[in-house]
Parts: sequence; C-alpha cells; structure tokens
Amino acid sequence: MPGISADAVILGYDGKDIKALLLKAKEVDYWMLPGGFIEKEFDLNTAVHRIVKARTGLEQLYLQQFQFFGKADRNAHQKEHLKSLHQLSLKARTWISQRFITAGYFALVKIDDVLPKADLFSDRCEWIPVDQLPPLIIDHHEILQTALLYLRRQLNYLPIGLNLMPEKFTMPQLQNLYEGIMKQKLDRGNFQRKILKLDILIRHEKLKSGGAHKAPYLYQFDVEKYNEKVKDGIGFV
Amino acid sequence: MPGISADAVILGYDGKDIKALLLKAKEVDYWMLPGGFIEKEFDLNTAVHRIVKARTGLEQLYLQQFQFFGKADRNAHQKEHLKSLHQLSLKARTWISQRFITAGYFALVKIDDVLPKADLFSDRCEWIPVDQLPPLIIDHHEILQTALLYLRRQLNYLPIGLNLMPEKFTMPQLQNLYEGIMKQKLDRGNFQRKILKLDILIRHEKLKSGGAHKAPYLYQFDVEKYNEKVKDGIGFV
Repeated sequence: MPGISADAVILGYDGKDIKALLLKAKEVDYWMLPGGFIEKEFDLNTAVHRIVKARTGLEQLYLQQFQFFGKADRNAHQKEHLKSLHQLSLKARTWISQRFITAGYFALVKIDDVLPKADLFSDRCEWIPVDQLPPLIIDHHEILQTALLYLRRQLNYLPIGLNLMPEKFTMPQLQNLYEGIMKQKLDRGNFQRKILKLDILIRHEKLKSGGAHKAPYLYQFDVEKYNEKVKDGIGFV
Repeated sequence: MPGISADAVILGYDGKDIKALLLKAKEVDYWMLPGGFIEKEFDLNTAVHRIVKARTGLEQLYLQQFQFFGKADRNAHQKEHLKSLHQLSLKARTWISQRFITAGYFALVKIDDVLPKADLFSDRCEWIPVDQLPPLIIDHHEILQTALLYLRRQLNYLPIGLNLMPEKFTMPQLQNLYEGIMKQKLDRGNFQRKILKLDILIRHEKLKSGGAHKAPYLYQFDVEKYNEKVKDGIGFV
C-alpha cells in the first residue's frame, strides 16, 4: 500500500543502557528504524511482524502499536536522498518520496536472546544506546523519542521489566532500568517499597557463604502475578 | 489518500449515561462514527479535525489518537453495501470498497456544549448511549469498544472528568461517571478517599439554609492541578 508504512522501535536493556535496534542504510549517512510499506494482503499487525523479520531477522516479538506519524511533509527534507537509494525498487523509491503515513510500533526484548541480521538495504544492524543516537532518517528520531515517552508513561500503569531483565536480578539492577526509562534518579528505599508493594516479585534466599551477608537479594518476576497486573493495571482504580 | 482514513469516537456524559456521537448513514441501515479519508495535503491530525467538523459541525475538539485498525478484510462483509452508497462520489465508493486502514481517534466533550449537525451523507447525527448501540458499519463497533477500553485504562494513570462533567458537581455524580467508564460499581468511601488524594478538586462550602445540612458538597476541578496530573500521571512513579 503506497500511503502507509510501519516502523518498529525495538528496545533492549543490557544491564546498563537502554538500547534501540537500528539499521545503517546503505548509500546514505543515516541510520533508521526497521520498517517498510504495508503489504496489501496482510493485516497491519501481521505486516509489521513480516517487515521486522525481513529487516532484522527477529521473530516472535510482542510488537505494540503506539502512535501514527502523519505529518504531510514528514519526508520533505530527504526527498532527494530517498529517491536516490539504488538498492530500492523503482516502486519503493517512488512511494518513499511521496507522502506516506507510518504506524509506530514498539517491542521490548532481551538483548541476549536475539541475533540481529542486516538486510539487503543496510550495512549493519546494531544495538545503539538511546542517549547516543546517530542521525536518523526522515522522522525516525521523533518516532523513537515518542516510543520512549510511551514507555515512561506505561511505568504509571503497567509493570515493566519481564521482557528486559535477566531471569534473576538485584533490586538495584531493576531500579537502574526504571531510572534509565525515566531519565532520573530515584530514591532507593522509596523505589524498593513501591516495587515490593506491587507484589510481582519472588525473592530468593541469599547464598550462605563467607561474607555473603553483604550480598544483595536476588529477585525474579512472578510471571502469573506480573501478567495479572498487565491485565488489570497498577494504578488508581 | 485512498488507503487511509480516520474515524472519531466522540464521547459525552449527560450525568447518567456515557454516550457516543453517531451518524445514521443514508440509504443503508447502519450507523457510523464520523470519519473519512485523509486529504493528501494535510497532516493526519489536521485532517481528522476537518473530517469531524465537516461531518458533525463540531470544532476545536481535543482529538487523541488511540489505535489504528488495519485488518486486511475489515470491510469485506459490507463491500456491496458500501459500493452502492449513491451519495458518495465514484472515487469514494471505489476507495471504500478497497482495502483501507483507519486511524482511531477519540475526544471527550460536554454534551451541552455542542450542537451536532448531520452532513449530506447522513440522515441524523445523535448522541447514543454506549450500552444501547445500533448496528454500526464496517468495524466501527470494534473501534468504539476499543476507545472505551482505552478510556478505562486511562483511569489508571490520568485524571478524567474535566471535559465531561459540568463545572460544579457532587461526589456521587463524579463516581457515577467513573462507574460508567469502568462498567462496575465502586465503593463510595474508597472512591472518595482516592479521588481526594489526587488533590485535583476544590470543595465549595454548603449553602446555609433550612435542611441544607443534608445537601452534598459541591466540587469543581482545580484546573491547574488537574493539568499537572495530566502531564505527570497519577500512578506508580
């Protein structure tokens, strides 16, 4: 469908930074989100999965819609660039230089679980920290920032972390993820109290060994309770 | 743009029921949300406002995107119906019987503030309670139900009511709105405690007059504090 594409913001967490999966476009000095035009015969959600798989090799992601990007002149600055992408078919080059609206999707994944692969149109497919982004094509910077904003807002009504954290983790590690999403430091005691109150964590016993009394507790998500909170929300009502 | 339309779920509250603004299509026995195809030269958000104004007469709504509806066969059941809408131009009839994706928007309005007007393609434009809906065209029933679901979820992280309640209202009136959105009864004391804790209401003194000690307090929203909560959220963090 010429007028509508989708772009996926795929976010991961390596224990230190929140990272986005980006492709380096061939021929031009821009990076981009994995995306493409919607195939006519597929449901939008199916089409997005096919695009992401074709462009990065990733399968079975939980991709969520978050917003459309529909400014009439969103590709205006790069029309000439886009028309000259020789890797693309003539049809794709025409479409990409005309007006098109894009559906923004995002997914959270464990970085270690996936092995991204660049496609024909890209030199590389890499995890890049979201606070050290290279120049992105068209309005992909805005799309990525908006996805981060949605994620930040979700902290208010959904538990977050199951798809990002290793199976077992310490409280400071989880706090670091929240701080990364919120872009601010949180009080340690306050964070621990609020997270425990959600009742979605299982605490493991500390290993008994010399000096182990100083080791932090390890936690893991109680998947059943976690998913209940995903369904019901954690907020006001 | 042939492949992309927008539909608006415009919700109001009359003190008793949550109602949606719907149009009765001419020639067919279906009602529909105000919507239409996106004009090529306008930003998506601008185009939606133009569509809603043209179809219902309503202006200056705060329309929010909530989801796109992109099933490949979403109009399959009604293709013949749609093709025979003689009020539409040939172009529109062709587009509407081909595949198109729609952007779902919603707005909350005070019913008394607006005077809806039907357009050329509709017999009537009316407020209809969302639990007494007539048959709706294409997937408009799904779009409307999904908007209600989003609104329900928003109760978890945003204050709600400023655009729906009269200027002054009682606590039971506000509770009735929440119950309508949540489709469940709430405990009175619990509701009052939680709402007051949000610190977004101004309480007025009771009028002093005979028997007035039984009158309920009147409240109004503290717009400044309300808008702060809209910005920051009311939830976990």
